[in-house]
Amino acid sequence: MDIRTGLLEGKKRAAARLITMLENESEEGIAVLKEFFHLTGRSRIIGITGPPGAGKSTVTDRLAKHLRKLDKKVAIIAVDPTSPFSGGAILGDRIRMSDLNTDEGIFIRSMGTRGALGGLSKSVNGAVKVMDIMGYDYIFIETVGVGQSEIDIVKVADTVVMVMVPGLGDDIQAIKAGIMEIGDIFAVNKSDREGAERTVTEIEMMLDLNGMDEYRPPVKNIIAIDNIGIDELYEDIEKHNIYMIESGAFIKRRMKAIEEEILGIFKENLMSKVSKLQQKTDYMTTLITEVYGKSKDTYTAASELSDIINKEGGKISG
Amino acid sequence: MDIRTGLLEGKKRAAARLITMLENESEEGIAVLKEFFHLTGRSRIIGITGPPGAGKSTVTDRLAKHLRKLDKKVAIIAVDPTSPFSGGAILGDRIRMSDLNTDEGIFIRSMGTRGALGGLSKSVNGAVKVMDIMGYDYIFIETVGVGQSEIDIVKVADTVVMVMVPGLGDDIQAIKAGIMEIGDIFAVNKSDREGAERTVTEIEMMLDLNGMDEYRPPVKNIIAIDNIGIDELYEDIEKHNIYMIESGAFIKRRMKAIEEEILGIFKENLMSKVSKLQQKTDYMTTLITEVYGKSKDTYTAASELSDIINKEGGKISG
Repeated sequence: MDIRTGLLEGKKRAAARLITMLENESEEGIAVLKEFFHLTGRSRIIGITGPPGAGKSTVTDRLAKHLRKLDKKVAIIAVDPTSPFSGGAILGDRIRMSDLNTDEGIFIRSMGTRGALGGLSKSVNGAVKVMDIMGYDYIFIETVGVGQSEIDIVKVADTVVMVMVPGLGDDIQAIKAGIMEIGDIFAVNKSDREGAERTVTEIEMMLDLNGMDEYRPPVKNIIAIDNIGIDELYEDIEKHNIYMIESGAFIKRRMKAIEEEILGIFKENLMSKVSKLQQKTDYMTTLITEVYGKSKDTYTAASELSDIINKEGGKISG
Repeated sequence: MDIRTGLLEGKKRAAARLITMLENESEEGIAVLKEFFHLTGRSRIIGITGPPGAGKSTVTDRLAKHLRKLDKKVAIIAVDPTSPFSGGAILGDRIRMSDLNTDEGIFIRSMGTRGALGGLSKSVNGAVKVMDIMGYDYIFIETVGVGQSEIDIVKVADTVVMVMVPGLGDDIQAIKAGIMEIGDIFAVNKSDREGAERTVTEIEMMLDLNGMDEYRPPVKNIIAIDNIGIDELYEDIEKHNIYMIESGAFIKRRMKAIEEEILGIFKENLMSKVSKLQQKTDYMTTLITEVYGKSKDTYTAASELSDIINKEGGKISG
């Protein structure tokens, strides 16, 4: 199957192959993406994030099924909280989503973190573009909301749903506080559990502290597993989208995401030049040894590296 | 006070000022660091990490006091789990450490994450260098063990102590699994709590799965607040150091840290060229607008940015 024809015919297999090619930084993959780039920008991108165990997969699953009833095509990127070292994925409840994958209108892609989180961000961006080209109406990015890298991933979304859960200990308030500010909508899942109302109150209080924008994120109790509150959550997502478009914030956020993406590719291209240089010349090893021996400092080493990449850059990448 | 004289005389105020200068990427600060760079590489760097609420500050506090009794000079870098957006620090138990700060042989520096986590890594590296120049025997880096960025920070350490706590829910097992592999020593703190033995067993089981190195991280119960197990923890740190040196792993780890540091500075220098370019020419805005309008793709934009930085780089940074 030709990948271009496959994409145009909406074949999932072609999309999956292109995503893998982009993950591997294949030049052919990038060439295809460039060709079809004019078809991007049409999908709605929804981030689903929150602490581990909050039920993000279930929320995504239920929202996807709701959208299918409205005859929307849905793509899901599930970012697994894997070990940054071994790359072993903790599949957990992804498996529950497998029934979705038989539906032609749904496309699911799992991604592991595999150490290179900058690379993950790029992989997610690549997958979003491919799904966008394929004409999926909604693209969900589901990722665990801890750490800067995960926040970076979800920042490409037009709307971020923060899935919370009752009874999160005080211990992780610190993390929660760090990620609260990216939530456009808060869904307190498993709200048949004790403490659901308190969690809602706590979130409302944090939002009070954030100062007043014209848009205030709604905070809702849901029980995703029983489909309770999913319709309302969908309505909130639509309302947020309307607000974003009418206020001009939509364009601003997309422009910001584009900026991050360009800079990300720019940085990774440079890093790939560095690693090519290293393969050819052992230049990095020399620098490191000099710094270790104190005959050179790290700043000088970095600027020498910069000079050599500038000079050799064209040759190396050619 | 001249900063150079202050450094040579071991004045904390001079060190604090230089660290701030490095955080702000001051050229004078970098010049001073370069001058004194030959004095680095003598301190032992100990990472203290683990989930929020495990009592990392208390462990650091008790280890520092133990080392003071052995007449060692101790520096502590406490990385606060702040909001990546507002920069507001959650001080929490840092305050408890304030009694340490009156001791001339102890130097404490708090650092917030402030959005730019690449920047934080660089700031931590800068602070480590300054403390090293000042002749502190031990430098502790204390940071919450969640997310890739935090792991990157702690990777500069020669020895990483992972502080755990009994009764961590299954929910954060995923995170734990991700950070287990950087632990050289495991200390199960607050081990008078229920479930301490089970936590030890769980950690041992995870270590069993990791395959066998010649070095196996010890797992110990401690109660830092009551000073129980601190002596043994110190012994374990020393044993790990001896193993690292004798096996040659010490040099390897330091070389790796130097490599990361050079690449980090290299990347940030480039980013600073990009932002200087942006200030002068609005070039980035043009690129972003073109990508938003689909007249250009992100890959093409990134490579054009690369070309212009190569060409203009010298002029911009000059």
